[in-house]
Amino acid sequence: MDQSAINKLIAAHKPGHALDRPFYTSESIYQRDIERIYMRSWLYAGHISEIPAQGDYLLFEFAKESVIIVHSDTGEISALLNVCRHRGSRVCLANEGKTAKFTCPYHGWTYALNGELRGAAHMDRDFDKNAYGLRKVHMQILAGLIFVNFSQSPANFDAVADDLCEALKPYNLEAAKVAHRQSYHIEGNWKLAIENYTECYHCAPAHPEYSRGHALAQGKASMQVQLEELMEKSQHCGLSNKTIDNSFLRTRDFGTDTAFTRYPMIRGHVTGSKDGTPIAPLLGTVTQYDGGCTDFQVGPVSFALAYCDHIVIYRFTPVDVSNSVCDITWLLRGDATEGEDYDRDKLVWLWDITTKADKVIIENNQLGINSRYYTPGPYSSMEEFTARFIDWYLHSIVRTSAD
Amino acid sequence: MDQSAINKLIAAHKPGHALDRPFYTSESIYQRDIERIYMRSWLYAGHISEIPAQGDYLLFEFAKESVIIVHSDTGEISALLNVCRHRGSRVCLANEGKTAKFTCPYHGWTYALNGELRGAAHMDRDFDKNAYGLRKVHMQILAGLIFVNFSQSPANFDAVADDLCEALKPYNLEAAKVAHRQSYHIEGNWKLAIENYTECYHCAPAHPEYSRGHALAQGKASMQVQLEELMEKSQHCGLSNKTIDNSFLRTRDFGTDTAFTRYPMIRGHVTGSKDGTPIAPLLGTVTQYDGGCTDFQVGPVSFALAYCDHIVIYRFTPVDVSNSVCDITWLLRGDATEGEDYDRDKLVWLWDITTKADKVIIENNQLGINSRYYTPGPYSSMEEFTARFIDWYLHSIVRTSAD
Amino acid sequence: MDQSAINKLIAAHKPGHALDRPFYTSESIYQRDIERIYMRSWLYAGHISEIPAQGDYLLFEFAKESVIIVHSDTGEISALLNVCRHRGSRVCLANEGKTAKFTCPYHGWTYALNGELRGAAHMDRDFDKNAYGLRKVHMQILAGLIFVNFSQSPANFDAVADDLCEALKPYNLEAAKVAHRQSYHIEGNWKLAIENYTECYHCAPAHPEYSRGHALAQGKASMQVQLEELMEKSQHCGLSNKTIDNSFLRTRDFGTDTAFTRYPMIRGHVTGSKDGTPIAPLLGTVTQYDGGCTDFQVGPVSFALAYCDHIVIYRFTPVDVSNSVCDITWLLRGDATEGEDYDRDKLVWLWDITTKADKVIIENNQLGINSRYYTPGPYSSMEEFTARFIDWYLHSIVRTSAD
Repeated sequence: MDQSAINKLIAAHKPGHALDRPFYTSESIYQRDIERIYMRSWLYAGHISEIPAQGDYLLFEFAKESVIIVHSDTGEISALLNVCRHRGSRVCLANEGKTAKFTCPYHGWTYALNGELRGAAHMDRDFDKNAYGLRKVHMQILAGLIFVNFSQSPANFDAVADDLCEALKPYNLEAAKVAHRQSYHIEGNWKLAIENYTECYHCAPAHPEYSRGHALAQGKASMQVQLEELMEKSQHCGLSNKTIDNSFLRTRDFGTDTAFTRYPMIRGHVTGSKDGTPIAPLLGTVTQYDGGCTDFQVGPVSFALAYCDHIVIYRFTPVDVSNSVCDITWLLRGDATEGEDYDRDKLVWLWDITTKADKVIIENNQLGINSRYYTPGPYSSMEEFTARFIDWYLHSIVRTSAD
Repeated sequence: MDQSAINKLIAAHKPGHALDRPFYTSESIYQRDIERIYMRSWLYAGHISEIPAQGDYLLFEFAKESVIIVHSDTGEISALLNVCRHRGSRVCLANEGKTAKFTCPYHGWTYALNGELRGAAHMDRDFDKNAYGLRKVHMQILAGLIFVNFSQSPANFDAVADDLCEALKPYNLEAAKVAHRQSYHIEGNWKLAIENYTECYHCAPAHPEYSRGHALAQGKASMQVQLEELMEKSQHCGLSNKTIDNSFLRTRDFGTDTAFTRYPMIRGHVTGSKDGTPIAPLLGTVTQYDGGCTDFQVGPVSFALAYCDHIVIYRFTPVDVSNSVCDITWLLRGDATEGEDYDRDKLVWLWDITTKADKVIIENNQLGINSRYYTPGPYSSMEEFTARFIDWYLHSIVRTSAD
Repeated sequence: MDQSAINKLIAAHKPGHALDRPFYTSESIYQRDIERIYMRSWLYAGHISEIPAQGDYLLFEFAKESVIIVHSDTGEISALLNVCRHRGSRVCLANEGKTAKFTCPYHGWTYALNGELRGAAHMDRDFDKNAYGLRKVHMQILAGLIFVNFSQSPANFDAVADDLCEALKPYNLEAAKVAHRQSYHIEGNWKLAIENYTECYHCAPAHPEYSRGHALAQGKASMQVQLEELMEKSQHCGLSNKTIDNSFLRTRDFGTDTAFTRYPMIRGHVTGSKDGTPIAPLLGTVTQYDGGCTDFQVGPVSFALAYCDHIVIYRFTPVDVSNSVCDITWLLRGDATEGEDYDRDKLVWLWDITTKADKVIIENNQLGINSRYYTPGPYSSMEEFTARFIDWYLHSIVRTSAD
């Protein structure tokens, strides 16, 4: 599919309807997705508690890229491209670990934690080590959450911080820790995974476990009274009742989407546990369960759901045009002790079962879309945010002849 | 490979010889195969005994398509495209079952058994349910055998019925039942599977189990006397001795191929069993084993072999350019009881072992064809019908600038 | 990628640096690799001891090709393309064996051991069997090593023999036997496998087992004194101290590369065993371990390492653009008896463990190269031979408008 054919397809999109098949199957469009979306957006890469001491590192990988997120000096974190400057080998093979330096497993080129090339045997005398450090990508930290951006001149992250810092403050995410992390491989285009995440129209039919406790599954209209009660109560529990919506086409700069929205849980449920009862110590400065939870978003493909006692972070990345990954991270108080303060299986239960169900849903969605008989249908009122994602997506991948 | 390159390749075909490599390996030619052959032909989809009551359904799937064959009302069968009209999910996930309605597992859109959309929550007021029923494909039943056609204006099926109904009558297929069904995945282009099925030149070297009992393995010339005896005897056993040959280029309308040919079994063999002895009760109004069997065909990719006591149906469909499936269905009298009147393992033995051997043969054929040193060789006299398939195939996929 | 784009990429290569990404990922470039390199080079296919008697055969397979190397008449070996001249099936399915003739498993066409078609039932009277023998590729034997060349007019093999025969004579390879053979599948482009084999810059960091015993791991400069001692000692042990370097751009005719180089082992090591002590009887007319070993090469993708008591042959072939195979053969004296004169596990240990390590290295090299951030870095002085391989490779795949 050539560039003008893609632009025609974008122009032919029927507002308020799902995307046409090629957006989920075309290799050419996938290439645009990577260039226009993933290479220009702030992407969640990890939490500072995962690399607390000098030399601690973890990998953030998607599509064909691999980045080493490393605690290089006291207080400083580097995001290094995991590609040796000699002949291109992956330098770091473990998904996470601790090291004093990175030694390429092929020819032993050695890089400092900040990426500088320190050792390369048998090179010519005029070889300039300074010119062969590991490349870096931009990195920013917000409330302990690490974000990277592959663009050479990424959108200013300050706006993100301005938006969210105050609202997130009561959770004290800087002092949180990762209790569990899991990756879900999905045989479907990455957009189907985000479409799935961004609407709760499917919650009632597909997620009984979630729907039992979360009022959002009933639609926004029917939760209005509860929501007002929640907003009132929040303040007394030390939580923000702010609403932020700078997502997708409302974003100030491309790739810096932010959102913060509170919604009520159903009576008898105070957190995302199997029976609705507390599952871990209250986060940060939260004084009491207020009967609600918080959706927030940083960048276009990373979302989070904050309960009063734990936070679940979701990141959606592509593997290729027809495969993607949902990475989930469970955060809770940094001083909570497993086995005493929380049970990992109970903590993880809801979003593990829900994400496994979504994996099946998304894969069957892709299978149906692959059919020549698929035609994009109209969105319901409960898919408004998904429709906004689609509009932003189409707007983002348009190319003019100038770029 | 562009369209004119394909047309040149078709024009370069040497009559009486096998096809050139690209017909088995080119993605562009495969796309033509789907458009020109599979989307315009009557295809075997199942037998009425598999969905006897209202709500019974089974899926017919090939390439990227999925069709629900469902007993919708008393006596009526619908062929519904398994693609939700909302966002395209597969609506029905099970290969077969019984249901009162089809509820999409994603957002719960609900369809009646005839495909009409009955429920879709949270849609706008001006949403017209009538415009969003499941799409249908054409469906016809012949002697209890269900056929579908994906074309918007399929060739008239009446001609098929006119040809075959009388000849098939003694078998009383309407009252038959499915004793067993099995799918064989083949790593080879679909045409290699059909070429394999349509000639018995390979029977003697490759299928000792079949060749022991079936005179066809010796070539038509050497079975002439036996054939005349059989034709005489048939009538006294209640079987037709008609010969129909409206296959491939002799077909009246594209996609409606029909054939009916009798041939003798070898002395001591009355049916396709391991030892040649009866394997199930005589079918329909057949009064006696006449020592023969019947090849018949409906549409270009569905074939059957009728013995006096059971019928084996073969359907060949593509998965992609280099993978295909052979689906086999074993039919026998509807009132036969497993364990009493027949043993399923014995019934299935011959064509299971033969099809497994053909799978290996076809896969090695594809491997050899993939070599740059493959050149199409000449057909033998025993491959006459395969040569006719090839001629028809090439004729069918030609495109003029007008279409 | 069209042909002129490939030529531009070749022209843009920076001397002394690794290749750019598309050379390892582009399907179009891979097609050129096959045409320009593999279809025109002498390729190692096996050793005469593997097919000692009439009817003995083995297959040599790579990419989409399969060749039967068969002992057809006393003393004569044929290299037959494993593609039936009828409809293209693989004729021979077993990787090795013994047979009186080759009978195609599909329709029973029968070929003599020299490839002539002997039987084909049911063919027309004017069918000329002489025109349908199995195709052949060129075959040559050097010191018991069998080489094939797919070119219609391959480069003269005499030059290879002239170069190497005398130097190899003391090993008496004609009287050797195959003790073990193993294939290593590598998820990486074939050139990465050859690049890996052709330099010992990675030996010290990546292969402790090899580096313990082989001075080459320290670099050529530091082994100069030992090398001179070795060259002196060789002659007294019955070994050649010749050096041949007609590899890559120094080759007289394309595809006939030859090399023969001796290098010292480290004190205490006389052969490639775990502890450096003898592992099998001395080869041929070698009278004594001289403390060295020999690298030799025949054709651009087949290499060998000769110790005084065994020889290891390495062949690198592609499966497709991103997969390749390293086939290793261990040869030793033909009259050595397993269990008495040598232990197979001990014989195989070093190059099995080293090749498994290289497989991981090459796969991580490919992964890094797949990244958009990969840029080819400069070669070290220890990668000189690899740099020569690269120069030859680029020179070999250039196409002018005339060819």
